Amino acid sequence: MLKYQIISFKKVDKIMNKIKVGIVGGTGYTGVELLRLLVNHEQVQIQAVTSRAEAGKQVADFFPNLRGHINLAFTKPNQANLSECDLVFFATPNGTAMQTVPDLLKAGVKIIDLAADFRIKDLTVWQHWYGMEHACPELVEEAVYGLPEINKAEIAKARLVANPGCYPTAVQLGFLPLLEANLIDTQHLIADAKSGVSGAGRKANVGTLMGEIGESFKAYNVSGHRHWPEICQGLNLHTHSSQPIDLTFVPHLLPMIRGIEATLYATRLTDVSLEEIQTLFIERYQNEPFVDVLPLKSHPETRNVRGVNTCQLAIHQPPNRDSKTIVVLSVIDNLVKGAAGQAIQNMNIMFGFAETMGLRGVGLLP
Amino acid sequence: MLKYQIISFKKVDKIMNKIKVGIVGGTGYTGVELLRLLVNHEQVQIQAVTSRAEAGKQVADFFPNLRGHINLAFTKPNQANLSECDLVFFATPNGTAMQTVPDLLKAGVKIIDLAADFRIKDLTVWQHWYGMEHACPELVEEAVYGLPEINKAEIAKARLVANPGCYPTAVQLGFLPLLEANLIDTQHLIADAKSGVSGAGRKANVGTLMGEIGESFKAYNVSGHRHWPEICQGLNLHTHSSQPIDLTFVPHLLPMIRGIEATLYATRLTDVSLEEIQTLFIERYQNEPFVDVLPLKSHPETRNVRGVNTCQLAIHQPPNRDSKTIVVLSVIDNLVKGAAGQAIQNMNIMFGFAETMGLRGVGLLP
Amino acid sequence: MLKYQIISFKKVDKIMNKIKVGIVGGTGYTGVELLRLLVNHEQVQIQAVTSRAEAGKQVADFFPNLRGHINLAFTKPNQANLSECDLVFFATPNGTAMQTVPDLLKAGVKIIDLAADFRIKDLTVWQHWYGMEHACPELVEEAVYGLPEINKAEIAKARLVANPGCYPTAVQLGFLPLLEANLIDTQHLIADAKSGVSGAGRKANVGTLMGEIGESFKAYNVSGHRHWPEICQGLNLHTHSSQPIDLTFVPHLLPMIRGIEATLYATRLTDVSLEEIQTLFIERYQNEPFVDVLPLKSHPETRNVRGVNTCQLAIHQPPNRDSKTIVVLSVIDNLVKGAAGQAIQNMNIMFGFAETMGLRGVGLLP
Amino acid sequence: MLKYQIISFKKVDKIMNKIKVGIVGGTGYTGVELLRLLVNHEQVQIQAVTSRAEAGKQVADFFPNLRGHINLAFTKPNQANLSECDLVFFATPNGTAMQTVPDLLKAGVKIIDLAADFRIKDLTVWQHWYGMEHACPELVEEAVYGLPEINKAEIAKARLVANPGCYPTAVQLGFLPLLEANLIDTQHLIADAKSGVSGAGRKANVGTLMGEIGESFKAYNVSGHRHWPEICQGLNLHTHSSQPIDLTFVPHLLPMIRGIEATLYATRLTDVSLEEIQTLFIERYQNEPFVDVLPLKSHPETRNVRGVNTCQLAIHQPPNRDSKTIVVLSVIDNLVKGAAGQAIQNMNIMFGFAETMGLRGVGLLP
Repeated sequence: MLKYQIISFKKVDKIMNKIKVGIVGGTGYTGVELLRLLVNHEQVQIQAVTSRAEAGKQVADFFPNLRGHINLAFTKPNQANLSECDLVFFATPNGTAMQTVPDLLKAGVKIIDLAADFRIKDLTVWQHWYGMEHACPELVEEAVYGLPEINKAEIAKARLVANPGCYPTAVQLGFLPLLEANLIDTQHLIADAKSGVSGAGRKANVGTLMGEIGESFKAYNVSGHRHWPEICQGLNLHTHSSQPIDLTFVPHLLPMIRGIEATLYATRLTDVSLEEIQTLFIERYQNEPFVDVLPLKSHPETRNVRGVNTCQLAIHQPPNRDSKTIVVLSVIDNLVKGAAGQAIQNMNIMFGFAETMGLRGVGLLP
Repeated sequence: MLKYQIISFKKVDKIMNKIKVGIVGGTGYTGVELLRLLVNHEQVQIQAVTSRAEAGKQVADFFPNLRGHINLAFTKPNQANLSECDLVFFATPNGTAMQTVPDLLKAGVKIIDLAADFRIKDLTVWQHWYGMEHACPELVEEAVYGLPEINKAEIAKARLVANPGCYPTAVQLGFLPLLEANLIDTQHLIADAKSGVSGAGRKANVGTLMGEIGESFKAYNVSGHRHWPEICQGLNLHTHSSQPIDLTFVPHLLPMIRGIEATLYATRLTDVSLEEIQTLFIERYQNEPFVDVLPLKSHPETRNVRGVNTCQLAIHQPPNRDSKTIVVLSVIDNLVKGAAGQAIQNMNIMFGFAETMGLRGVGLLP
Repeated sequence: MLKYQIISFKKVDKIMNKIKVGIVGGTGYTGVELLRLLVNHEQVQIQAVTSRAEAGKQVADFFPNLRGHINLAFTKPNQANLSECDLVFFATPNGTAMQTVPDLLKAGVKIIDLAADFRIKDLTVWQHWYGMEHACPELVEEAVYGLPEINKAEIAKARLVANPGCYPTAVQLGFLPLLEANLIDTQHLIADAKSGVSGAGRKANVGTLMGEIGESFKAYNVSGHRHWPEICQGLNLHTHSSQPIDLTFVPHLLPMIRGIEATLYATRLTDVSLEEIQTLFIERYQNEPFVDVLPLKSHPETRNVRGVNTCQLAIHQPPNRDSKTIVVLSVIDNLVKGAAGQAIQNMNIMFGFAETMGLRGVGLLP
Repeated sequence: MLKYQIISFKKVDKIMNKIKVGIVGGTGYTGVELLRLLVNHEQVQIQAVTSRAEAGKQVADFFPNLRGHINLAFTKPNQANLSECDLVFFATPNGTAMQTVPDLLKAGVKIIDLAADFRIKDLTVWQHWYGMEHACPELVEEAVYGLPEINKAEIAKARLVANPGCYPTAVQLGFLPLLEANLIDTQHLIADAKSGVSGAGRKANVGTLMGEIGESFKAYNVSGHRHWPEICQGLNLHTHSSQPIDLTFVPHLLPMIRGIEATLYATRLTDVSLEEIQTLFIERYQNEPFVDVLPLKSHPETRNVRGVNTCQLAIHQPPNRDSKTIVVLSVIDNLVKGAAGQAIQNMNIMFGFAETMGLRGVGLLP
């Protein structure tokens, strides 16, 4: 008897201590994805979901998949009492979070920004790629880049986490073991990445209409995409030389909604075998609950991870036996491991919850 | 107090005694969907998943979305020790379950058949539409039609449940309140239904290739679909007259994977208002956790219920004020409320678990 | 020998006399579809394509499928010298053509309006559904409704043609033979119609994003769609009674780009057989090059007519032998027979060209 | 005047002399695409379309997009009198054409094989990748590889043309100008290619079901695809060194039907500017009607060329100014320039027709 009573008290105790969470910018795809995952998170109480345009409207009327799961209306940001939250997620366009974050931090609120405001350490680079002045440059240095497979200890102590971009998550997780082990030529990195259209967000835009995107495929921003400096920054921290990497990053738009696949090409420096590389990857990620190294020569499909926080990786060698090329395949759900799921993983780490809490679902296949 | 202690003991007891579940036919879409939902069900231990063709192969190698969630290989049906299970799901082609069900029932195993072997009470009708002799006609009468919103009490006592077809679920839930209340002409029922292609199963077939189905739309089987007699049987039980209904049922194939939408047309007999019909629907389903009546004039989208067990309904009237036509819109996920989810709902009812156990996810939108 | 010389002279003659055509509103989907079909039309010289937003830009830079096929830049409407054209197509939003048409008619230019400005004869109805005052009510009466299978002689003489809506084309062609022959109950007509998303046009809009429309399906505007009064007006002209028809029209949005399928339900008044109905349809359309009555019980697919001006029809009866319901299936490409193709068919008729000129392509399958 | 008379006589003359064409294997996607393009080809009379399985059935009943365009039934191959044709297309699985081609050549029939039987000159390589013995190795040497942009003169004289694979067409056209000009390192070529699912053909197969392919994306055959040796053979003919190229070729499967995009990565050997490369491409292809070099930094979309025989190319440089990487984007319709359209282009060249005859359509956008 006693055993169960104790468990029971503890559980009640924890329920009493759920953290209060606010979401700024709740009408976009990362917003609704945060809500989908958080409404069933046992340690979270959603306190406020903000939207200027939809203030007053029930969240579940706006996103009918949430009917029966949430009983909140959107509020205007300034009426949301965000300073009473333990944590606020920003699921807003770039340049929004940085306006409010300093005040919230002063009020003792922790922050996870799903946009790009705090991802790039070099302010000149940031301002070049994002085309605006930074509103709180002093916080950029403090912000922790929220890729848990690299920065778990720092995230645990952070007040302010910059959640990584979707492409940067898929690309970095695939290249990192090779760079850390100094196995590849840092001057010949190629990332050919493909994303579902939800990565472009839920805003009125001709370019992402079904009529424009369906049944067609294209590369875009080949001459420069904002995620390129973010990936370079991340990878440069893990090379064995002071020379910056030379990464060619080409994003493409897929005629589907969710999922990123990155096909990564690197050139071996030494005579390491495919099996040794496989072992390297398995060991590198053996304690990471959300990185899954598939058996050698597997072909991960984006649907394997639809709706879940996993990155699946697979290693290949081209048929040409003399080739020094290594191919790494990396798939994620851009809205989960590439956005909302990774944000919740970061939240779990920041608040001492189990890293996988609320993130144990199975990919929706088919 | 005592009451709760008893419940508690029972619960603990049950946790110790998770039910043992077998799945016959684990390589199809209903099979993998059962697995997706069952691996996180707190009262279920998956004992065996059978497949003749894939026997010996790890389930999670075959369906990589299940990696980390299941540690079982497929077994041949005759080596699966199914008679030691508490419950066996048949996710097999029509005509398979009826070969094995009699022996399993004798061994004390409960059965939920996701195929059509036990859905139709009139054997002549069944044999006409399914083109074979029935192997155990004596069990057809005993079998309970597993639409919980109609038959909950019988399901709770059943040894053998015939899980409804996908179209019949969407169509019956939309027409039932109107028929029960005797509000509509039973001789003018029209169900225009549209299904994603996963309803056709995961078998090699030219007709369901992406190249045949993508970016196109068609009606099919207009002159006769197997779900038509099943729907008629179900609706005839709830009319106020002995005359069989006249239902025109036209299925269509959608260029997408999951989801059924049924647009139902009926003719009012009396001067009931739209608001009264709305009230009727809300009251009819107020205790049903998986039927969600949307506000009047809503337009339910199949994505609202993607991956979840909910049926969303909405009531409309055409713009012509004098018209006697009522339009009911009904959406489900054909693989969940139309198959695997409803089967688990039935299991929960049969074993006294909470009806929603393992089925509390949120629809994947977008 | 002589025969060929004469043909040759005639041909040269005609080439000298190509008609000059202008397109107002060239950046939308009906605009680019007009261009796709007109650049290879042997009797047409495209004189101007207007766009306020893109003036000065090469049309083929904007729509790269046209590279090598057109050497024109967009011009502002007021600089396009439209009054020098023989014919101007308006591929503009509703309410635009009516501002300019009176002046162009005065200048002797013929007009085909692909929007709704001149489709509805009853101005009160038009103003109710389109929410604006009509700018030239005196021309509404003169305008000929451009459904060639009904109005060919009037179209041949017309100065101003109102090109039908996409749904109205598919629905009217399916119901007309039955109404003309007085075979069905005019008080029980149901049209369950489904359209690809290109029907919503090429404008920035959250509701038609790939992220909103892909992999999902819904009914919309069930309580009233602008094409309902247009269909009713057309069908009412062909009934054998003065009582207006009672048509329930439910449009749905398909997760694909091109194609409309309408499933039409009617109730037989007499004991006419399916074969007699089939004969009726074949005879009704035997001289219509763009209406193709498929063999009884066929299931037309929208892809059969992708990119071409054909409407395919098929007749069915439900499996219930006693039922009086007749089902007609109708498919068109909404951008061709539902818009640009029908407009060119009308142009051919207005200018005495072969009705099929420029419209002899084969549907793109798969 | 005289001019037109002469043209006229010639034209009549040619109409009298339409060539007789047979298609072996008419029920697949390349078969129906050949038919779509050939029924409107002014110099072709389709004599026979063979199919073992569908013999006796009207072609237009099998492919309803062809209704009104062809009045032929499928015949069994041995009853098709193929030896009376001027040209026979083989749209058959690999290994079929080589059984019949020797006899047809002896009968004076010209051959275009759309499969791989005659593409690879090195028989050992062919037998390794295609897993069978070659039935007529003596003809492999004679066969001309039908990439007109390389081999136009040889094609004009050929009896037997091996029509290139879809990926090889897109990849070779993108790399060739760079290799011919000796501008890039032949030991670091990467082709990241993505194809619509029609490339896998129209055969019953679980792997290409809509349920498997829709809304998902993956790489496949990374460790070896049959088009890799074909691409290498083609590119090796145009290098300036005897060392074979090192090409890494990774194919991917797109959730759509038609279209290939290849993103090609090469490393500059010298300090050539982007503008110079652009000029090189424009000059290389200035006389090629089906290769369209877009303005620098364009992003070609597969829909630009949907249904047409054009390859669109665009050149890019990564944002890293010091990088030596050149990126070439190449798009084709895999069923047209990648199969049936290129075959007709080859036919036109072999018979002295205008190279673009029957291939002047505009891409279906949207």
